[in-house]
Amino acid sequence: MLLNGEYANAVSLHDRGLAYGDGLFETVLIANGQPVLLEQHLARLQRGCERLGLEPELDSLRRELRLLLAAPPKPFHPLPERSVVKLLLTRRAAGRGYRPGSRLAQRLLLLYPAPEDAARHAHNGIDVFLCRQSLARQPSLAGIKHLNRLEQVLASQEWPDEGVQEGLMADTEGLLIEGTRSNVFLRRQGRLFTPDLGRCGIDGVLRQHLLSQWPEPVAVVDVPLAWLEDADEVFVCNSIFGVWPVTGLRLPGGLRRLPIGNAARSASHLFQQVCQHAS
Amino acid sequence: MLLNGEYANAVSLHDRGLAYGDGLFETVLIANGQPVLLEQHLARLQRGCERLGLEPELDSLRRELRLLLAAPPKPFHPLPERSVVKLLLTRRAAGRGYRPGSRLAQRLLLLYPAPEDAARHAHNGIDVFLCRQSLARQPSLAGIKHLNRLEQVLASQEWPDEGVQEGLMADTEGLLIEGTRSNVFLRRQGRLFTPDLGRCGIDGVLRQHLLSQWPEPVAVVDVPLAWLEDADEVFVCNSIFGVWPVTGLRLPGGLRRLPIGNAARSASHLFQQVCQHAS
Repeated sequence: MLLNGEYANAVSLHDRGLAYGDGLFETVLIANGQPVLLEQHLARLQRGCERLGLEPELDSLRRELRLLLAAPPKPFHPLPERSVVKLLLTRRAAGRGYRPGSRLAQRLLLLYPAPEDAARHAHNGIDVFLCRQSLARQPSLAGIKHLNRLEQVLASQEWPDEGVQEGLMADTEGLLIEGTRSNVFLRRQGRLFTPDLGRCGIDGVLRQHLLSQWPEPVAVVDVPLAWLEDADEVFVCNSIFGVWPVTGLRLPGGLRRLPIGNAARSASHLFQQVCQHAS
Repeated sequence: MLLNGEYANAVSLHDRGLAYGDGLFETVLIANGQPVLLEQHLARLQRGCERLGLEPELDSLRRELRLLLAAPPKPFHPLPERSVVKLLLTRRAAGRGYRPGSRLAQRLLLLYPAPEDAARHAHNGIDVFLCRQSLARQPSLAGIKHLNRLEQVLASQEWPDEGVQEGLMADTEGLLIEGTRSNVFLRRQGRLFTPDLGRCGIDGVLRQHLLSQWPEPVAVVDVPLAWLEDADEVFVCNSIFGVWPVTGLRLPGGLRRLPIGNAARSASHLFQQVCQHAS
Protein backbone atom coordinates (compact mmCIF):
# COMPACT_ATOMS: atom_id res chain seq x y z
CA MET A 1 0.00 0.00 0.00
CA LEU A 2 1.21 3.51 -0.77
CA LEU A 3 1.75 6.32 1.72
CA ASN A 4 2.77 9.57 0.00
CA GLY A 5 4.01 7.53 -2.92
CA GLU A 6 6.09 5.02 -0.93
CA TYR A 7 5.19 1.45 -0.06
CA ALA A 8 4.19 1.35 3.62
CA ASN A 9 2.21 -0.68 6.15
CA ALA A 10 1.59 1.79 8.94
CA VAL A 11 0.82 5.44 9.74
CA SER A 12 2.09 7.62 12.55
CA LEU A 13 0.40 7.37 15.94
CA HIS A 14 -0.06 11.14 15.70
CA ASP A 15 -1.98 11.02 12.41
CA ARG A 16 -4.91 13.47 12.51
CA GLY A 17 -7.05 11.02 10.60
CA LEU A 18 -6.71 8.72 13.60
CA ALA A 19 -6.98 11.48 16.20
CA TYR A 20 -10.01 13.38 14.87
CA GLY A 21 -11.11 11.84 11.59
CA ASP A 22 -9.55 14.95 10.05
CA GLY A 23 -9.59 13.80 6.45
CA LEU A 24 -11.50 12.37 3.50
CA PHE A 25 -11.70 9.17 1.52
CA GLU A 26 -12.90 7.69 -1.74
CA THR A 27 -13.37 4.07 -2.72
CA VAL A 28 -12.81 3.58 -6.44
CA LEU A 29 -13.86 0.50 -8.38
CA ILE A 30 -11.07 -0.93 -10.55
CA ALA A 31 -12.53 -2.84 -13.50
CA ASN A 32 -10.07 -4.73 -15.72
CA GLY A 33 -7.25 -2.66 -14.32
CA GLN A 34 -8.91 0.71 -14.94
CA PRO A 35 -10.45 3.06 -12.33
CA VAL A 36 -14.19 3.70 -12.84
CA LEU A 37 -15.56 7.26 -12.52
CA LEU A 38 -12.13 8.37 -11.25
CA GLU A 39 -12.46 12.03 -12.21
CA GLN A 40 -15.83 12.24 -10.42
CA HIS A 41 -14.26 10.70 -7.30
CA LEU A 42 -11.41 13.20 -7.43
CA ALA A 43 -13.85 16.09 -7.93
CA ARG A 44 -15.72 15.09 -4.78
CA LEU A 45 -12.42 14.76 -2.93
CA GLN A 46 -11.55 18.27 -4.06
CA ARG A 47 -14.88 19.64 -2.79
CA GLY A 48 -14.20 17.92 0.53
CA CYS A 49 -10.73 19.47 0.66
CA GLU A 50 -12.20 22.93 0.10
CA ARG A 51 -14.62 22.33 2.96
CA LEU A 52 -11.93 21.08 5.38
CA GLY A 53 -9.16 23.45 4.28
CA LEU A 54 -6.83 20.86 2.76
CA GLU A 55 -4.66 20.81 -0.35
CA PRO A 56 -6.09 18.06 -2.57
CA GLU A 57 -2.89 17.23 -4.54
CA LEU A 58 -4.92 15.40 -7.13
CA ASP A 59 -2.03 15.05 -9.57
CA SER A 60 -0.03 13.14 -6.96
CA LEU A 61 -3.03 10.91 -6.29
CA ARG A 62 -3.49 10.19 -10.00
CA ARG A 63 0.20 9.34 -10.36
CA GLU A 64 0.27 7.12 -7.27
CA LEU A 65 -2.88 5.31 -8.37
CA ARG A 66 -1.24 4.51 -11.73
CA LEU A 67 1.85 3.30 -9.87
CA LEU A 68 -0.20 1.04 -7.57
CA LEU A 69 -2.20 -0.45 -10.45
CA ALA A 70 0.94 -0.99 -12.54
CA ALA A 71 2.71 -2.83 -9.69
CA PRO A 72 0.10 -4.08 -7.25
CA PRO A 73 1.32 -5.82 -4.08
CA LYS A 74 1.42 -9.60 -3.96
CA PRO A 75 -2.10 -10.86 -3.22
CA PHE A 76 -3.37 -8.60 -6.04
CA HIS A 77 -0.77 -9.60 -8.61
CA PRO A 78 -2.05 -10.01 -11.26
CA LEU A 79 -5.00 -7.70 -10.64
CA PRO A 80 -8.31 -9.57 -10.57
CA GLU A 81 -11.09 -8.52 -12.95
CA ARG A 82 -12.49 -6.26 -10.26
CA SER A 83 -10.88 -4.72 -7.20
CA VAL A 84 -11.23 -1.58 -5.08
CA VAL A 85 -8.75 1.18 -4.32
CA LYS A 86 -9.39 3.26 -1.25
CA LEU A 87 -7.85 6.73 -1.33
CA LEU A 88 -7.43 8.50 2.00
CA LEU A 89 -6.32 12.05 2.61
CA THR A 90 -5.56 13.02 6.21
CA ARG A 91 -4.24 16.32 7.49
CA ARG A 92 -0.55 16.22 8.40
CA ALA A 93 0.08 16.17 12.12
CA ALA A 94 1.35 19.24 13.95
CA GLY A 95 1.15 18.73 17.72
CA ARG A 96 -1.79 17.83 19.93
CA GLY A 97 -5.05 19.78 19.70
CA TYR A 98 -7.86 20.43 17.25
CA ARG A 99 -6.31 23.49 15.61
CA PRO A 100 -5.02 22.40 12.21
CA GLY A 101 -1.38 23.33 11.90
CA SER A 102 -1.32 22.60 8.20
CA ARG A 103 -3.29 22.54 4.96
CA LEU A 104 -1.07 19.72 3.73
CA ALA A 105 -2.51 16.23 3.49
CA GLN A 106 -0.87 12.86 3.45
CA ARG A 107 -2.05 10.46 0.80
CA LEU A 108 -2.82 6.84 1.44
CA LEU A 109 -3.80 4.29 -1.23
CA LEU A 110 -5.10 0.87 -0.21
CA LEU A 111 -6.05 -2.00 -2.49
CA TYR A 112 -8.91 -4.33 -1.53
CA PRO A 113 -10.76 -7.19 -3.21
CA ALA A 114 -14.09 -6.21 -4.76
CA PRO A 115 -17.21 -7.40 -2.88
CA GLU A 116 -18.16 -10.86 -4.08
CA ASP A 117 -21.93 -10.76 -4.34
CA ALA A 118 -22.41 -7.42 -6.10
CA ALA A 119 -23.49 -8.85 -9.46
CA ARG A 120 -25.84 -11.41 -7.91
CA HIS A 121 -27.62 -8.75 -5.83
CA ALA A 122 -27.82 -6.44 -8.85
CA HIS A 123 -29.55 -9.25 -10.74
CA ASN A 124 -31.83 -10.67 -8.01
CA GLY A 125 -32.53 -7.57 -5.92
CA ILE A 126 -31.99 -7.21 -2.18
CA ASP A 127 -33.80 -6.88 1.13
CA VAL A 128 -33.22 -3.71 3.13
CA PHE A 129 -34.18 -2.68 6.65
CA LEU A 130 -34.74 0.65 8.37
CA CYS A 131 -31.97 1.61 10.82
CA ARG A 132 -32.93 3.11 14.17
CA GLN A 133 -29.68 5.09 14.13
CA SER A 134 -30.33 8.52 12.62
CA LEU A 135 -28.10 10.95 10.73
CA ALA A 136 -27.47 14.34 12.37
CA ARG A 137 -28.07 17.50 10.37
CA GLN A 138 -24.77 19.27 9.79
CA PRO A 139 -24.70 21.25 6.53
CA SER A 140 -20.98 22.01 6.80
CA LEU A 141 -20.17 18.28 6.58
CA ALA A 142 -23.03 17.19 4.30
CA GLY A 143 -22.33 15.73 0.87
CA ILE A 144 -18.60 15.14 1.30
CA LYS A 145 -17.00 11.80 2.16
CA HIS A 146 -15.13 12.65 5.34
CA LEU A 147 -13.68 10.28 7.92
CA ASN A 148 -16.25 10.91 10.70
CA ARG A 149 -18.39 7.85 10.08
CA LEU A 150 -19.58 6.68 13.49
CA GLU A 151 -23.23 7.05 12.52
CA GLN A 152 -22.69 4.50 9.76
CA VAL A 153 -20.74 2.23 12.11
CA LEU A 154 -23.56 2.35 14.69
CA ALA A 155 -26.22 1.76 12.02
CA SER A 156 -24.25 -1.21 10.72
CA GLN A 157 -24.39 -2.80 14.18
CA GLU A 158 -28.17 -3.06 13.81
CA TRP A 159 -27.95 -5.58 10.94
CA PRO A 160 -30.75 -8.01 11.76
CA ASP A 161 -29.47 -11.03 9.80
CA GLU A 162 -27.52 -11.97 6.69
CA GLY A 163 -30.71 -11.86 4.62
CA VAL A 164 -30.54 -8.06 4.33
CA GLN A 165 -27.92 -6.32 2.21
CA GLU A 166 -28.44 -2.69 3.18
CA GLY A 167 -29.92 -0.48 5.91
CA LEU A 168 -31.74 2.75 5.10
CA MET A 169 -31.15 5.78 7.32
CA ALA A 170 -33.30 8.80 8.13
CA ASP A 171 -32.10 12.07 9.60
CA THR A 172 -32.93 13.13 13.17
CA GLU A 173 -36.17 14.71 11.86
CA GLY A 174 -37.35 11.54 10.14
CA LEU A 175 -36.53 12.29 6.49
CA LEU A 176 -35.11 9.43 4.42
CA ILE A 177 -31.49 10.26 3.48
CA GLU A 178 -29.48 7.28 2.24
CA GLY A 179 -28.29 3.74 2.89
CA THR A 180 -25.42 3.01 5.27
CA ARG A 181 -23.11 2.74 2.23
CA SER A 182 -25.28 3.77 -0.70
CA ASN A 183 -27.65 6.38 -2.05
CA VAL A 184 -31.32 5.65 -2.57
CA PHE A 185 -33.76 6.38 -5.40
CA LEU A 186 -37.55 5.88 -5.45
CA ARG A 187 -40.05 5.80 -8.31
CA ARG A 188 -43.48 7.03 -7.23
CA GLN A 189 -46.45 8.36 -9.14
CA GLY A 190 -44.44 8.07 -12.35
CA ARG A 191 -41.48 10.18 -11.17
CA LEU A 192 -38.00 9.34 -9.95
CA PHE A 193 -36.93 10.88 -6.62
CA THR A 194 -33.76 10.92 -4.57
CA PRO A 195 -33.27 12.63 -1.17
CA ASP A 196 -31.76 16.10 -0.97
CA LEU A 197 -28.36 15.84 0.77
CA GLY A 198 -27.91 19.47 1.79
CA ARG A 199 -28.13 18.74 5.53
CA CYS A 200 -26.61 15.27 5.79
CA GLY A 201 -25.63 12.25 3.73
CA ILE A 202 -22.86 11.50 1.25
CA ASP A 203 -23.34 12.68 -2.31
CA GLY A 204 -22.36 9.47 -4.07
CA VAL A 205 -20.39 9.50 -7.29
CA LEU A 206 -22.75 7.04 -8.98
CA ARG A 207 -25.74 9.07 -7.72
CA GLN A 208 -24.22 12.14 -9.40
CA HIS A 209 -23.65 10.20 -12.59
CA LEU A 210 -27.24 8.92 -12.66
CA LEU A 211 -28.59 12.43 -11.98
CA SER A 212 -26.53 13.86 -14.85
CA GLN A 213 -27.36 11.07 -17.33
CA TRP A 214 -31.01 10.39 -16.53
CA PRO A 215 -33.22 11.08 -19.57
CA GLU A 216 -35.80 12.96 -17.48
CA PRO A 217 -35.30 15.32 -14.54
CA VAL A 218 -34.93 13.48 -11.22
CA ALA A 219 -36.58 15.24 -8.27
CA VAL A 220 -33.98 15.93 -5.54
CA VAL A 221 -36.25 16.70 -2.60
CA ASP A 222 -36.99 16.05 1.08
CA VAL A 223 -38.27 12.46 1.12
CA PRO A 224 -40.53 11.41 4.02
CA LEU A 225 -40.02 7.84 5.22
CA ALA A 226 -43.71 7.26 4.46
CA TRP A 227 -42.91 7.29 0.74
CA LEU A 228 -41.35 3.85 1.22
CA GLU A 229 -44.89 2.59 1.88
CA ASP A 230 -46.21 3.49 -1.57
CA ALA A 231 -43.14 3.74 -3.82
CA ASP A 232 -43.52 1.67 -6.99
CA GLU A 233 -39.81 0.98 -7.14
CA VAL A 234 -36.77 1.52 -4.90
CA PHE A 235 -33.10 1.01 -5.63
CA VAL A 236 -29.81 1.78 -3.91
CA CYS A 237 -26.50 2.48 -5.61
CA ASN A 238 -22.85 3.09 -4.97
CA SER A 239 -19.82 3.25 -7.21
CA ILE A 240 -18.44 -0.11 -6.05
CA PHE A 241 -21.43 -2.45 -6.24
CA GLY A 242 -23.42 -0.48 -8.81
CA VAL A 243 -27.23 -0.61 -8.65
CA TRP A 244 -29.15 -2.94 -6.37
CA PRO A 245 -32.93 -3.04 -6.85
CA VAL A 246 -34.80 -3.31 -3.56
CA THR A 247 -37.20 -6.24 -3.77
CA GLY A 248 -37.86 -6.55 -0.04
CA LEU A 249 -38.45 -3.58 2.25
CA ARG A 250 -38.52 -4.51 5.94
CA LEU A 251 -40.73 -1.74 7.30
CA PRO A 252 -42.14 -1.36 10.81
CA GLY A 253 -45.48 -2.63 9.46
CA GLY A 254 -43.91 -5.76 7.98
CA LEU A 255 -42.15 -6.92 4.83
CA ARG A 256 -43.13 -5.12 1.63
CA ARG A 257 -42.32 -6.90 -1.65
CA LEU A 258 -41.43 -4.78 -4.67
CA PRO A 259 -40.71 -5.67 -8.29
CA ILE A 260 -37.48 -4.90 -10.12
CA GLY A 261 -38.59 -2.00 -12.30
CA ASN A 262 -37.46 -0.11 -15.34
CA ALA A 263 -35.77 2.67 -13.35
CA ALA A 264 -33.42 0.19 -11.64
CA ARG A 265 -32.78 -1.49 -15.01
CA SER A 266 -31.90 1.82 -16.65
CA ALA A 267 -29.67 2.83 -13.74
CA SER A 268 -27.93 -0.54 -13.87
CA HIS A 269 -27.35 -0.11 -17.58
CA LEU A 270 -25.74 3.30 -16.98
CA PHE A 271 -23.43 1.72 -14.40
CA GLN A 272 -22.43 -1.08 -16.77
CA GLN A 273 -21.64 1.53 -19.40
CA VAL A 274 -19.18 3.40 -17.17
CA CYS A 275 -17.49 0.12 -16.23
CA GLN A 276 -17.05 -0.80 -19.87
CA HIS A 277 -15.97 2.71 -20.74
CA ALA A 278 -13.22 2.55 -18.09
CA SER A 279 -11.77 -0.70 -19.37
CA MET B 1 4.35 5.30 23.10
CA LEU B 2 2.41 2.15 23.89
CA LEU B 3 0.23 0.15 21.53
CA ASN B 4 -1.48 -2.74 23.32
CA GLY B 5 1.22 -2.64 25.94
CA GLU B 6 4.21 -2.62 23.56
CA TYR B 7 6.36 0.35 22.59
CA ALA B 8 5.40 1.40 19.07
CA ASN B 9 5.50 4.36 16.67
CA ALA B 10 2.83 3.49 14.13
CA VAL B 11 -0.60 1.91 13.66
CA SER B 12 -1.90 -0.25 10.84
CA LEU B 13 -3.14 1.43 7.68
CA HIS B 14 -6.34 -0.54 8.20
CA ASP B 15 -7.02 0.84 11.68
CA ARG B 16 -10.74 1.63 12.09
CA GLY B 17 -9.88 4.73 14.09
CA LEU B 18 -8.21 6.05 10.95
CA ALA B 19 -10.86 4.73 8.56
CA TYR B 20 -14.03 5.88 10.37
CA GLY B 21 -13.09 7.48 13.66
CA ASP B 22 -14.40 4.24 15.19
CA GLY B 23 -13.09 4.76 18.69
CA LEU B 24 -12.75 6.97 21.75
CA PHE B 25 -10.12 8.98 23.54
CA GLU B 26 -9.28 10.63 26.84
CA THR B 27 -6.60 13.17 27.65
CA VAL B 28 -5.43 12.80 31.23
CA LEU B 29 -3.40 15.41 33.11
CA ILE B 30 -0.33 13.96 34.82
CA ALA B 31 0.65 16.11 37.82
CA ASN B 32 3.89 15.21 39.59
CA GLY B 33 3.80 11.79 37.98
CA GLN B 34 0.22 11.00 39.00
CA PRO B 35 -2.87 10.92 36.75
CA VAL B 36 -5.57 13.43 37.77
CA LEU B 37 -9.24 12.34 37.82
CA LEU B 38 -8.20 9.04 36.22
CA GLU B 39 -11.17 6.99 37.42
CA GLN B 40 -13.58 9.62 36.07
CA HIS B 41 -11.80 9.51 32.70
CA LEU B 42 -12.03 5.73 32.63
CA ALA B 43 -15.72 5.86 33.60
CA ARG B 44 -16.46 8.13 30.64
CA LEU B 45 -14.42 5.84 28.39
CA GLN B 46 -16.51 2.94 29.61
CA ARG B 47 -19.76 4.79 28.83
CA GLY B 48 -18.40 5.50 25.36
CA CYS B 49 -17.53 1.82 24.90
CA GLU B 50 -21.08 0.83 25.84
CA ARG B 51 -22.41 3.27 23.24
CA LEU B 52 -20.09 2.06 20.46
CA GLY B 53 -20.14 -1.63 21.35
CA LEU B 54 -16.51 -1.97 22.43
CA GLU B 55 -14.77 -3.84 25.23
CA PRO B 56 -13.20 -1.17 27.46
CA GLU B 57 -10.40 -3.31 28.97
CA LEU B 58 -9.87 -0.72 31.67
CA ASP B 59 -7.54 -2.92 33.69
CA SER B 60 -5.15 -3.16 30.77
CA LEU B 61 -5.29 0.61 30.33
CA ARG B 62 -4.55 1.18 34.02
CA ARG B 63 -1.61 -1.22 33.89
CA GLU B 64 -0.20 0.28 30.68
CA LEU B 65 -0.53 3.81 32.04
CA ARG B 66 1.48 2.80 35.13
CA LEU B 67 4.09 1.23 32.85
CA LEU B 68 4.35 4.36 30.68
CA LEU B 69 4.67 6.69 33.68
CA ALA B 70 7.24 4.44 35.34
CA ALA B 71 9.41 4.34 32.21
CA PRO B 72 8.53 7.31 30.02
CA PRO B 73 10.25 7.61 26.62
CA LYS B 74 13.27 9.85 26.29
CA PRO B 75 12.03 13.44 25.91
CA PHE B 76 9.80 12.86 28.97
CA HIS B 77 12.48 11.28 31.16
CA PRO B 78 12.36 12.40 33.92
CA LEU B 79 8.67 13.35 33.78
CA PRO B 80 8.14 17.11 34.00
CA GLU B 81 5.91 18.51 36.77
CA ARG B 82 2.94 18.35 34.40
CA SER B 83 2.36 16.34 31.27
CA VAL B 84 -0.57 14.81 29.39
CA VAL B 85 -1.34 11.21 28.49
CA LYS B 86 -3.75 10.62 25.66
CA LEU B 87 -5.52 7.26 25.77
CA LEU B 88 -7.06 6.06 22.51
CA LEU B 89 -9.27 3.03 21.98
CA THR B 90 -10.00 2.05 18.40
CA ARG B 91 -11.95 -0.94 17.16
CA ARG B 92 -9.77 -3.71 15.79
CA ALA B 93 -9.80 -3.94 12.02
CA ALA B 94 -11.65 -6.73 10.23
CA GLY B 95 -11.84 -6.04 6.49
CA ARG B 96 -13.19 -3.03 4.59
CA GLY B 97 -16.66 -1.67 5.33
CA TYR B 98 -18.57 -0.03 8.16
CA ARG B 99 -19.82 -3.23 9.80
CA PRO B 100 -17.78 -3.76 12.93
CA GLY B 101 -16.26 -7.20 12.85
CA SER B 102 -15.20 -7.02 16.47
CA ARG B 103 -15.95 -5.65 19.92
CA LEU B 104 -12.24 -5.75 20.70
CA ALA B 105 -10.33 -2.50 20.90
CA GLN B 106 -6.69 -1.70 20.53
CA ARG B 107 -5.19 0.54 23.17
CA LEU B 108 -2.88 3.40 22.40
CA LEU B 109 -1.16 5.59 25.02
CA LEU B 110 0.62 8.77 23.97
CA LEU B 111 2.59 11.15 26.17
CA TYR B 112 2.57 14.90 25.43
CA PRO B 113 3.90 18.01 27.14
CA ALA B 114 1.30 19.94 29.14
CA PRO B 115 0.12 23.24 27.59
CA GLU B 116 2.42 26.04 28.70
CA ASP B 117 0.08 28.92 29.42
CA ALA B 118 -2.61 27.13 31.42
CA ALA B 119 -1.74 28.66 34.79
CA ARG B 120 -1.33 32.17 33.38
CA HIS B 121 -4.76 32.06 31.70
CA ALA B 122 -6.31 30.63 34.86
CA HIS B 123 -4.92 33.60 36.77
CA ASN B 124 -5.53 36.42 34.27
CA GLY B 125 -8.65 35.19 32.46
CA ILE B 126 -9.06 34.78 28.71
CA ASP B 127 -10.83 36.21 25.68
CA VAL B 128 -13.22 33.91 23.82
CA PHE B 129 -15.05 34.25 20.49
CA LEU B 130 -18.21 32.73 19.07
CA CYS B 131 -17.58 30.11 16.37
CA ARG B 132 -19.77 30.14 13.25
CA GLN B 133 -19.33 26.37 13.03
CA SER B 134 -22.23 24.68 14.80
CA LEU B 135 -22.57 21.32 16.55
CA ALA B 136 -25.06 18.85 15.05
CA ARG B 137 -27.66 17.26 17.29
CA GLN B 138 -26.97 13.55 17.56
CA PRO B 139 -28.09 12.09 20.90
CA SER B 140 -26.47 8.71 20.22
CA LEU B 141 -23.03 10.34 20.12
CA ALA B 142 -23.61 13.13 22.66
CA GLY B 143 -21.61 13.27 25.89
CA ILE B 144 -18.95 10.72 24.98
CA LYS B 145 -15.47 11.57 23.73
CA HIS B 146 -15.40 9.76 20.39
CA LEU B 147 -12.98 10.25 17.51
CA ASN B 148 -15.37 12.04 15.12
CA ARG B 149 -14.18 15.56 15.81
CA LEU B 150 -14.39 17.41 12.50
CA GLU B 151 -16.77 20.00 13.93
CA GLN B 152 -14.11 20.99 16.46
CA VAL B 153 -11.42 20.99 13.75
CA LEU B 154 -13.53 23.29 11.55
CA ALA B 155 -14.36 25.58 14.47
CA SER B 156 -10.67 25.78 15.36
CA GLN B 157 -9.93 27.07 11.85
CA GLU B 158 -11.97 30.18 12.65
CA TRP B 159 -9.51 31.39 15.32
CA PRO B 160 -9.40 35.14 14.70
CA ASP B 161 -5.99 35.87 16.29
CA GLU B 162 -3.69 34.71 19.08
CA GLY B 163 -5.46 37.04 21.54
CA VAL B 164 -8.30 34.54 22.03
CA GLN B 165 -7.84 31.29 23.92
CA GLU B 166 -11.12 29.52 23.24
CA GLY B 167 -14.10 29.50 20.85
CA LEU B 168 -17.64 28.90 22.07
CA MET B 169 -19.93 26.70 19.98
CA ALA B 170 -23.70 26.57 19.63
CA ASP B 171 -25.73 23.71 18.22
CA THR B 172 -27.51 23.93 14.85
CA GLU B 173 -30.55 25.42 16.64
CA GLY B 174 -28.55 28.20 18.30
CA LEU B 175 -28.19 26.88 21.86
CA LEU B 176 -24.84 27.40 23.57
CA ILE B 177 -23.19 23.99 24.10
CA GLU B 178 -19.47 24.16 24.90
CA GLY B 179 -16.05 25.44 23.89
CA THR B 180 -14.04 23.77 21.14
CA ARG B 181 -12.06 21.93 23.85
CA SER B 182 -13.81 22.84 27.08
CA ASN B 183 -17.14 23.02 28.87
CA VAL B 184 -18.73 26.31 29.79
CA PHE B 185 -20.43 27.61 32.94
CA LEU B 186 -22.35 30.91 33.42
CA ARG B 187 -23.44 32.76 36.56
CA ARG B 188 -26.62 34.76 35.95
CA GLN B 189 -29.21 36.17 38.32
CA GLY B 190 -27.37 34.57 41.23
CA ARG B 191 -27.38 31.02 39.84
CA LEU B 192 -24.77 28.87 38.14
CA PHE B 193 -25.74 27.27 34.80
CA THR B 194 -24.10 24.88 32.38
CA PRO B 195 -25.57 23.66 29.08
CA ASP B 196 -27.40 20.35 28.88
CA LEU B 197 -25.35 17.93 26.73
CA GLY B 198 -28.06 15.41 25.88
CA ARG B 199 -28.08 16.26 22.15
CA CYS B 200 -24.45 17.23 21.52
CA GLY B 201 -21.24 18.17 23.25
CA ILE B 202 -18.67 16.30 25.32
CA ASP B 203 -19.43 15.74 28.98
CA GLY B 204 -16.11 16.83 30.42
CA VAL B 205 -14.55 15.07 33.38
CA LEU B 206 -13.84 18.34 35.19
CA ARG B 207 -17.41 19.52 34.41
CA GLN B 208 -18.69 16.34 36.08
CA HIS B 209 -16.43 16.89 39.07
CA LEU B 210 -17.60 20.50 39.49
CA LEU B 211 -21.26 19.44 39.19
CA SER B 212 -20.78 16.78 41.86
CA GLN B 213 -18.79 18.99 44.27
CA TRP B 214 -20.57 22.34 43.87
CA PRO B 215 -22.08 23.47 47.20
CA GLU B 216 -25.38 24.46 45.56
CA PRO B 217 -27.28 22.78 42.72
CA VAL B 218 -26.01 23.82 39.27
CA ALA B 219 -28.76 24.23 36.66
CA VAL B 220 -28.07 21.92 33.69
CA VAL B 221 -30.40 23.40 31.08
CA ASP B 222 -30.77 24.60 27.50
CA VAL B 223 -28.75 27.83 27.40
CA PRO B 224 -29.63 30.42 24.74
CA LEU B 225 -26.67 32.29 23.26
CA ALA B 226 -28.35 35.52 24.44
CA TRP B 227 -27.43 34.64 28.04
CA LEU B 228 -23.84 35.54 27.16
CA GLU B 229 -25.08 39.15 26.86
CA ASP B 230 -26.16 39.43 30.48
CA ALA B 231 -24.22 36.73 32.36
CA ASP B 232 -22.44 38.10 35.42
CA GLU B 233 -19.63 35.61 35.08
CA VAL B 234 -18.50 33.02 32.51
CA PHE B 235 -15.79 30.39 32.77
CA VAL B 236 -14.61 27.43 30.70
CA CYS B 237 -12.94 24.31 32.01
CA ASN B 238 -11.29 21.10 30.97
CA SER B 239 -9.31 18.49 32.83
CA ILE B 240 -5.97 19.53 31.31
CA PHE B 241 -5.93 23.29 31.75
CA GLY B 242 -8.36 23.49 34.65
CA VAL B 243 -10.58 26.58 34.94
CA TRP B 244 -10.19 29.67 32.78
CA PRO B 245 -12.32 32.68 33.72
CA VAL B 246 -13.65 34.51 30.65
CA THR B 247 -12.77 38.20 30.98
CA GLY B 248 -13.38 39.11 27.34
CA LEU B 249 -16.38 37.89 25.32
CA ARG B 250 -16.14 38.74 21.62
CA LEU B 251 -19.82 38.86 20.72
CA PRO B 252 -21.41 39.95 17.43
CA GLY B 253 -22.29 43.28 19.11
CA GLY B 254 -18.68 43.87 20.21
CA LEU B 255 -16.31 43.01 23.02
CA ARG B 256 -17.91 42.48 26.43
CA ARG B 257 -15.63 42.74 29.46
CA LEU B 258 -16.39 40.55 32.47
CA PRO B 259 -14.80 40.32 35.92
CA ILE B 260 -13.22 37.20 37.38
CA GLY B 261 -15.90 36.16 39.85
CA ASN B 262 -16.35 33.93 42.84
CA ALA B 263 -17.75 31.02 40.84
CA ALA B 264 -14.59 30.79 38.71
CA ARG B 265 -12.47 31.12 41.87
CA SER B 266 -14.34 28.29 43.59
CA ALA B 267 -14.15 26.09 40.49
CA SER B 268 -10.43 26.78 40.20
CA HIS B 269 -9.97 25.83 43.83
CA LEU B 270 -11.75 22.50 43.25
CA PHE B 271 -9.42 21.82 40.31
CA GLN B 272 -6.31 22.60 42.38
CA GLN B 273 -7.57 20.23 45.04
CA VAL B 274 -7.82 17.28 42.64
CA CYS B 275 -4.35 18.01 41.30
CA GLN B 276 -2.90 18.00 44.81
CA HIS B 277 -4.90 14.94 45.74
CA ALA B 278 -3.44 13.04 42.77
CA SER B 279 0.15 13.81 43.67
